Amino acid sequence: MEVSWEQSVTDSINTIYLLFSAYLVFVMQLGFAMLCAGSVRAKNAMNIMLTNVVDAVVGSISYYLFGFAFAFGVGSSSSNPFIGTTFFALKDIPNTTYDYNFFLFQWAFAIAVAGITSGSIAERTQFTAYLVFSFFLTGFVYPVVAHWVWSSNGWLSASSSELLFGSGAIDFAGSGVVHMLGGIAGLWGSFIEGPRVGRFDAFGKPMPMRGHNATLVVLGTFLLWFGWFGFNPGSFDKILVAYPNTTDQGNWTAIGRTAVTTTLAGSTAGITTLFGRRLLVGHWDALDVCNGVLGGFVAITSGCAVVEPWAAIVCGFCSAWVLIGLNILALKLQFDDPLEATQLHGGCGAWGLIFTGLFAKEEFVIQAYESGESGVVRPYGLLMGGGWGLIGCQVVQVLVIVLWVSLTMGPLFYALHKLRILRISIDEEVAGLDISSHGGYAYVAHPEDDQPRFYADYMRLQAQNQS
Amino acid sequence: MEVSWEQSVTDSINTIYLLFSAYLVFVMQLGFAMLCAGSVRAKNAMNIMLTNVVDAVVGSISYYLFGFAFAFGVGSSSSNPFIGTTFFALKDIPNTTYDYNFFLFQWAFAIAVAGITSGSIAERTQFTAYLVFSFFLTGFVYPVVAHWVWSSNGWLSASSSELLFGSGAIDFAGSGVVHMLGGIAGLWGSFIEGPRVGRFDAFGKPMPMRGHNATLVVLGTFLLWFGWFGFNPGSFDKILVAYPNTTDQGNWTAIGRTAVTTTLAGSTAGITTLFGRRLLVGHWDALDVCNGVLGGFVAITSGCAVVEPWAAIVCGFCSAWVLIGLNILALKLQFDDPLEATQLHGGCGAWGLIFTGLFAKEEFVIQAYESGESGVVRPYGLLMGGGWGLIGCQVVQVLVIVLWVSLTMGPLFYALHKLRILRISIDEEVAGLDISSHGGYAYVAHPEDDQPRFYADYMRLQAQNQS
Amino acid sequence: MEVSWEQSVTDSINTIYLLFSAYLVFVMQLGFAMLCAGSVRAKNAMNIMLTNVVDAVVGSISYYLFGFAFAFGVGSSSSNPFIGTTFFALKDIPNTTYDYNFFLFQWAFAIAVAGITSGSIAERTQFTAYLVFSFFLTGFVYPVVAHWVWSSNGWLSASSSELLFGSGAIDFAGSGVVHMLGGIAGLWGSFIEGPRVGRFDAFGKPMPMRGHNATLVVLGTFLLWFGWFGFNPGSFDKILVAYPNTTDQGNWTAIGRTAVTTTLAGSTAGITTLFGRRLLVGHWDALDVCNGVLGGFVAITSGCAVVEPWAAIVCGFCSAWVLIGLNILALKLQFDDPLEATQLHGGCGAWGLIFTGLFAKEEFVIQAYESGESGVVRPYGLLMGGGWGLIGCQVVQVLVIVLWVSLTMGPLFYALHKLRILRISIDEEVAGLDISSHGGYAYVAHPEDDQPRFYADYMRLQAQNQS
Repeated sequence: MEVSWEQSVTDSINTIYLLFSAYLVFVMQLGFAMLCAGSVRAKNAMNIMLTNVVDAVVGSISYYLFGFAFAFGVGSSSSNPFIGTTFFALKDIPNTTYDYNFFLFQWAFAIAVAGITSGSIAERTQFTAYLVFSFFLTGFVYPVVAHWVWSSNGWLSASSSELLFGSGAIDFAGSGVVHMLGGIAGLWGSFIEGPRVGRFDAFGKPMPMRGHNATLVVLGTFLLWFGWFGFNPGSFDKILVAYPNTTDQGNWTAIGRTAVTTTLAGSTAGITTLFGRRLLVGHWDALDVCNGVLGGFVAITSGCAVVEPWAAIVCGFCSAWVLIGLNILALKLQFDDPLEATQLHGGCGAWGLIFTGLFAKEEFVIQAYESGESGVVRPYGLLMGGGWGLIGCQVVQVLVIVLWVSLTMGPLFYALHKLRILRISIDEEVAGLDISSHGGYAYVAHPEDDQPRFYADYMRLQAQNQS
Repeated sequence: MEVSWEQSVTDSINTIYLLFSAYLVFVMQLGFAMLCAGSVRAKNAMNIMLTNVVDAVVGSISYYLFGFAFAFGVGSSSSNPFIGTTFFALKDIPNTTYDYNFFLFQWAFAIAVAGITSGSIAERTQFTAYLVFSFFLTGFVYPVVAHWVWSSNGWLSASSSELLFGSGAIDFAGSGVVHMLGGIAGLWGSFIEGPRVGRFDAFGKPMPMRGHNATLVVLGTFLLWFGWFGFNPGSFDKILVAYPNTTDQGNWTAIGRTAVTTTLAGSTAGITTLFGRRLLVGHWDALDVCNGVLGGFVAITSGCAVVEPWAAIVCGFCSAWVLIGLNILALKLQFDDPLEATQLHGGCGAWGLIFTGLFAKEEFVIQAYESGESGVVRPYGLLMGGGWGLIGCQVVQVLVIVLWVSLTMGPLFYALHKLRILRISIDEEVAGLDISSHGGYAYVAHPEDDQPRFYADYMRLQAQNQS
Repeated sequence: MEVSWEQSVTDSINTIYLLFSAYLVFVMQLGFAMLCAGSVRAKNAMNIMLTNVVDAVVGSISYYLFGFAFAFGVGSSSSNPFIGTTFFALKDIPNTTYDYNFFLFQWAFAIAVAGITSGSIAERTQFTAYLVFSFFLTGFVYPVVAHWVWSSNGWLSASSSELLFGSGAIDFAGSGVVHMLGGIAGLWGSFIEGPRVGRFDAFGKPMPMRGHNATLVVLGTFLLWFGWFGFNPGSFDKILVAYPNTTDQGNWTAIGRTAVTTTLAGSTAGITTLFGRRLLVGHWDALDVCNGVLGGFVAITSGCAVVEPWAAIVCGFCSAWVLIGLNILALKLQFDDPLEATQLHGGCGAWGLIFTGLFAKEEFVIQAYESGESGVVRPYGLLMGGGWGLIGCQVVQVLVIVLWVSLTMGPLFYALHKLRILRISIDEEVAGLDISSHGGYAYVAHPEDDQPRFYADYMRLQAQNQS
């Protein structure tokens, strides 16, 4: 007995699609590493790149052991709408629902979350604290929310048998589940740690504290854009799914449209930021444009599959102003997030969820979420005449993500803070994390500079003398 | 009623192929950004990277609104061989001819064109002028030529119902439509702007003016190579097309061969440049080799699908000497194109068109352009015994691209020049575009360097005082 | 007569899979270039990047002309278990066994080998010697071993009709054929060249000699990770192959699992290195973690397709200690391999071959190597109860690779050494290869630094005067 040819073809096509999408999503980890490295000062570049590598390697193990189980562990007999309970260490994988490809795709998502937050707490966090935080966020906090929204029996899911408000929340590729969650975690981290030394003067005036390498920022931005082509269109999981009541449409049509909405939203946000910041600060700022583009991507991630291209332009335009506004607010409040991750991923992520509640198109919602049944009536975008069901769920999702992250990551950061293992000392911060914790600077211009490994010993001896 | 399984499979396979090819082509935008950044002086790195980001984001909107329509807008009732007239803002997309995937693939091509030209006018162009130029080139000049050569009713097209000289021009992936067009636009831009300050001394002798970072040049070159695997093989658009009169061949065979010809042409050009420049200048120059490799790719882009691997080696060998020769000529003429874009994309692009007219193989031409009909006799490469029809069309294509770009971009650059908004002032050029227009340098080695944002204000005040 | 639809679909799917995998493997060349560049001193960055470009372009031509023939040239009438004898210059390609896609995939592997070795001999090798070595390794030494292990009639092959020890060696994606081979070649090169000037002081104590840019190291590591998704899962060559005696499995299932084992091995090795080195040297070292991750990938490359995910974790854990141990040993022996390529690719590669002999699972071995026949009994992992046949072959493979490379590359390096064209002079080494051989430094911080092209002339004149 052998697999039928039709089944082989279908599985092969879907495997190629999902695996290569997963590879693209993985590139985002490199994108974050470069973006973050370029956005911090040279003395902390090694540290933040190591955190991004660590997100990937620690995330692999924690997501393999239990993260994936918490997110998607829905057994035939067990069914918990709040947390998954099977598939620990990939037990019973592959099965008829999930295979290794799906795990790899979800793994690439999971490691991105901590990468987002790493930017918020950059340049001042102890490395051991980072390890604890990364493990907890990737292995527990994120998977639980993914279970709510994306698993087939999550209480907020748009594809479960019991839909909240008859709709469920639509967060197609994770404006909320991934980006807003990472951003809110960053909010708590950077709030509890406080601003970097010298970021604001005695009168609360922000002092310039620029990243050390704009080339890395542009490199990271383009790599993230490249990766987003896996993130958003890839979230269809399967490409070979035909739509009923059509003669020529299926996921393959929707996937192309999703790539287009993603591109248009990011581009519009970039242009809006270019001219908006030109008006506000008087020059053409490449780094602002990069962040603007990313903000547009974050916002469209929720609704990319269920809105028209023109709506994506609206989405991107608004997300640029959300980011600009929140950045001004952050300066006023003396809030210091070195990568603007709170504003960008948190703010634009929240806007993206609301946007979907306003602009989701009926036809596309049915195609993406009804999986083949015909004649269904379900809520869609409020401004498209789809009623209050969907927008209600989107608001609920914003609120529960804020609540859940605040109840988990807030106490964690606070406990680390109280245990005095969250933030580095002022001396170390001034000297830079690379020399105090990682054995030397990222850059060696001249051989004679090459003595920094002794510094770590020096700092340790000094600390011992003081205690 | 549902889509047939055969149709679903075909559409899914072709969608995967075209979308992932489009993603690779998009990587070329990053490649250009890195190549350009590394090839200019550090003080202009931020500027040129912003131009590459702007090409992408402005190009998205202009190509969405009308660029795609000008290029491929062929309605059932309307048919204009010179410019497309439908599909503005993706109206009526998807349809039976074009879908979103095709748009995305073409968008990635469109944004590359301005990226090519950006190199020619680097280090001395006002940013507002760049915005005007990029919008005009991506949204109008390029799409019109794409219509002539690639749309099903273009007057130069090799797949229309009325073939020029019974042949039509073969520019499979765009040695002419993309590269030569971008290079000729760069020729006019850099000619009208004139050389950078200090590029030639009072006696016309070229002074060394090297890029600031060779690592970025190599990074960009490899990324462009990676992207070219989407550019050339991807231009088949569909992979699941069987050839008549064969038992085992189809686009899938030709696609693999196209990847091989592309690789061989670039590699041969690289080796030739390595040894050629070693003989001429006495050292092994990594940057020359990078440009040589790119020249080989540019040249093979036209004929990649219709020539044998051995011919690709001929193509690459000659393109290296075309580039070396034109670079020597440019120095003699005191022509200053910081990225050699005119010589590389213009010169090797033109050679590529001619090469195809000489070496295109009958069997491959029929397979790539006859789409299933058998028994056709059509011209192919002159040296392969295919007559004068094809080479004639290729020469016509070279001429009309030079003419069209000269008639559109020449006056545009001249008008910007006359309006005094094309070139920056000498003071700004010496200080660098980054500090005069973009709020600061790309690199911050030490925090105390970090005061350049005031410079823009200073320059503006000085200008006001002088006027 | 036309190709059947089933055949078209199968060929299209397999072509997409193999070509895009090949593109990913090509990215590894960029990864090596960045990793190497970042790991050497700034004065040699241009040199090592050029060697990586040269590996690609020279490798294209040599592998096209004869490398592929030596590796896979098995004709219907000719059959030599030691070296291939047909398909020179792609003659008779495509045929029913091999097509252009397969060539491109194998080409991307071939150029990686020299890239591995380039790290071992970095910072002190004459460029002409590098050209000779790269051509010989890529065109002859590597293809012969590939023929032994991977071609259908190789004497060590696990898929030939006559299996050594009834098993044949399992080196699925090349821990031995690619990595160990490159590492042993590097061992001979760096042993014969000797340590870099200043690497060890007069008492044999190692002096710090750090790479100039950690950002490039992290960039290279992530790009290699990305490329390894093509290297390992891509080595299935075809995705559309159903397994007998199953209802839903085929290569598509195994491919996903292979991506997962690869990820887990690299991640485990990274974590192990992170904590292991923290205990040993007292700080969290990003560069060690990068190398650790790569060591894990190298080790799993042999068995990636035939082991369970949990075994991949064992593999990665051990490979980290192999690398740490060999690095300590290298310092003790005053062995200087700037990229640790000998230890990493040689040591972890050898461990990977042994690992496969211990942990290969019966079911997976049959699926990957029996291509459809049922009821076969063949050896598998020793610790899994599979007997001594497989582990015996693995040990044989380790030994013959060491022997073969020592008998070919050893004499080559020794001859170059005796001819005084292997190592550069001390003066050149102190000044750096970039200025002595490549016309200038990779980085130009200030325009006034920009006079180094004269240095080459100066050195040449001085040499003439002395001789």
